Amino acid sequence: MVKPSIPKGTRDFGPAVVRKRNYIFQTIRGVFELYGFQPLETPAMENLTTLNGKYGEEGDKLIFKILDNGDILGRAQQAKDSRELGYLLCEKALKYDLTIPFARYVVMNQHEIAFPFRRYQIQPVWRGDRPAKGRYREFYQCDADIIGSNSLMNEVELLKIYDTVFTKLGMEGYQIKVNNRKILAGLAELVGKSDLLTDITISIDKLDKIGAGGVTNELLNRGLSEADIKIILDFIAITGTNKEILDQLRKVFEPSETGLKGVEELSAVINNPYTQFNTEPIIDLTLARGLNYYTGMIIEVKAPETVKMGSIGGGGRYDDLTGLFGLPGVSGIGISFGVDRIYDVLEELQLFPATAQQSTQVIFLNTGDENAGIAFQYMMQLRESGISSEIYPESSKLDKQMKYANKREIPYVAIIGDSERESGKLSLKNLNTGEQQLLSLQELLEYNF
Amino acid sequence: MVKPSIPKGTRDFGPAVVRKRNYIFQTIRGVFELYGFQPLETPAMENLTTLNGKYGEEGDKLIFKILDNGDILGRAQQAKDSRELGYLLCEKALKYDLTIPFARYVVMNQHEIAFPFRRYQIQPVWRGDRPAKGRYREFYQCDADIIGSNSLMNEVELLKIYDTVFTKLGMEGYQIKVNNRKILAGLAELVGKSDLLTDITISIDKLDKIGAGGVTNELLNRGLSEADIKIILDFIAITGTNKEILDQLRKVFEPSETGLKGVEELSAVINNPYTQFNTEPIIDLTLARGLNYYTGMIIEVKAPETVKMGSIGGGGRYDDLTGLFGLPGVSGIGISFGVDRIYDVLEELQLFPATAQQSTQVIFLNTGDENAGIAFQYMMQLRESGISSEIYPESSKLDKQMKYANKREIPYVAIIGDSERESGKLSLKNLNTGEQQLLSLQELLEYNF
Repeated sequence: MVKPSIPKGTRDFGPAVVRKRNYIFQTIRGVFELYGFQPLETPAMENLTTLNGKYGEEGDKLIFKILDNGDILGRAQQAKDSRELGYLLCEKALKYDLTIPFARYVVMNQHEIAFPFRRYQIQPVWRGDRPAKGRYREFYQCDADIIGSNSLMNEVELLKIYDTVFTKLGMEGYQIKVNNRKILAGLAELVGKSDLLTDITISIDKLDKIGAGGVTNELLNRGLSEADIKIILDFIAITGTNKEILDQLRKVFEPSETGLKGVEELSAVINNPYTQFNTEPIIDLTLARGLNYYTGMIIEVKAPETVKMGSIGGGGRYDDLTGLFGLPGVSGIGISFGVDRIYDVLEELQLFPATAQQSTQVIFLNTGDENAGIAFQYMMQLRESGISSEIYPESSKLDKQMKYANKREIPYVAIIGDSERESGKLSLKNLNTGEQQLLSLQELLEYNF
Repeated sequence: MVKPSIPKGTRDFGPAVVRKRNYIFQTIRGVFELYGFQPLETPAMENLTTLNGKYGEEGDKLIFKILDNGDILGRAQQAKDSRELGYLLCEKALKYDLTIPFARYVVMNQHEIAFPFRRYQIQPVWRGDRPAKGRYREFYQCDADIIGSNSLMNEVELLKIYDTVFTKLGMEGYQIKVNNRKILAGLAELVGKSDLLTDITISIDKLDKIGAGGVTNELLNRGLSEADIKIILDFIAITGTNKEILDQLRKVFEPSETGLKGVEELSAVINNPYTQFNTEPIIDLTLARGLNYYTGMIIEVKAPETVKMGSIGGGGRYDDLTGLFGLPGVSGIGISFGVDRIYDVLEELQLFPATAQQSTQVIFLNTGDENAGIAFQYMMQLRESGISSEIYPESSKLDKQMKYANKREIPYVAIIGDSERESGKLSLKNLNTGEQQLLSLQELLEYNF
């Protein structure tokens, strides 16, 4: 017999982990709902044609394809290479993110949806990446988007959602960094290299890791002149408060309409007259975010610096997401929570509340038929009053039953032995404090667990 | 451009449906938790070797296999037929039910688990069945099992869970039918055809559809004598109250130890000294349930007869589930809820409560910059007091905004126009009654939505 195992990069979530993950999901979901976002769920399987070509050449390779059923040998024999074989044998694939299925859903249901459409979606996705620490082949994404509106009020709302969720999770010291793609586009305009926008942003994004010298070398290799590079280095050297940064940018971008538009958008969001943030967003001009489809504000949330966890969320404004499926001109903005990393941060900072770890509150020991019958009745009453409880199903040695209670970390043990039965009471023992008391059923039901 | 679509047999769940489904899941989950069951989640993907051969030959064909990445052309060329091709190209597959992954998990984690292990699991599974009304290729299962205990107290607990959940869902007229596999085995013993147990139970199970004549014909074809068949027909003709049925069975099974054991198990559960049922379980001797691994009590829950929906749940006791993966001798009992059918029943009987359909409660119309700023602040206060609300992000024509509110079925519209702003109030309109009132912020926060 083969020793059972699970596929590389996948995980079983045991009871304690499921409860803590649900605490995170519930917190985020609660805020989404409070902000008027509506839940959507799409199938795990999409048609391969829906996904193919949407994530670049590298992405295509990482999509998990599902083998067609039925007679496929003939088709297999026509394949010239492994890549073609995959497309000949598979009509369906596992979803790779939540964004493309969302766009597909919007196009399919465009006549029923009330726009602007505020939707959230919390579901697993699958990617054939090489598994590594913190990188899984099956993981949850947790997204909220508003599509069909250009209003910068949406930017404010989504920033405020990050702010509210991380505050509710008790996470102190997180940073919300913002930038605007139009500012980066303006920079490329300034150096007269709009066609190199992507290269420039990729290099800037690495400033943290490779320093100004590294950025210079990369840009030289990409064909920028020293004068161009000086403009870029001067740009990323702009620091100060949000106000100081915005003031300097206004000067820098006098010759660039695009750049100025980005500055004004950023300013309108940061200085919005609507609401205050618990943690004020910080302008970070080196923030680029990889995805090319962003066109306006971009956002990234960093974990508190003490935990060295990096990004725990991100998003931005995009145009024309649904154009891929035949519905052009719909602008939107979306954010995403990195649930696995948030879990690690909360664990490391010990921020999971006791309620997120609570399972059975009371276990009734089983001291034999007649006593067990009474214990069962008491237990049912407790359950009816909302206290999670159970009875050990066999009248095993009490040692064994206590071992079970301890292993399960059940805080209270209730015992009805012969003497308790005769007095119409039960013994309730708090396993954390060792305290034990004799209670009537009424007292049990009124007990403050 | 191809018109976007989703794979046959899969479904998108839009906001209203997700909310109602979540109501069902939350109700069931709440009862599971109250009864001391612990949540488990396993990956969508399992190793194909884990699943293969566990669901019979037909089942094997319906498992969705996931194509390996990388260089697979060489392997494909070795295949002699389509079936072999699948096994050559695929190491992983989508899970087909929750039971086998559960058994696999228990074996992998046997040293950490506290037995008896009470676990519940609510996740999607995938089957390549031909899609039909009510039959999907991706659907949720919702299971609770207790393994590692032979006590009949577990039978009582699981019956009580059904009783509690369907009562909480407000479903009147559901039936909980029970039988015991040992009774069916006893019957096969009585006719001296223990080897034909499966054939006999399959025929009996069809009594509803094909009548006594049909059952007779089937059993004749399977080689039973007319005398044997008379015993079987006499058996399934046993009716009356639970007590009357049990009394008659005790006589019938005098010569069969197995049969008597089944009768006593059933009697111990039905006449348990522990608890009462809202809806008393009914003994149904024709209840067989297809799965061969059941060895003790079997259960099936039928929807109220008015809705013609058939089975909405089922389960039973099994031995040796984990033996497949090298851990023999662990007995267990499990039940399952048919969530899709429960959904249809609640919909048809209009049993979804208003709270299960509640989304945004208040929408603030957008009457331009300054007013919108104040509306936004009011909205944030409402959200902080737990009322789901939103603001229309653009200052479009009020007609258009009202159309959005109506389409979303948002019950309250709040308006801050110039006159409201000047008086420090807002107009709150109930779209269901047409009533409109002028409120201060304080009055809004105290309003009983």
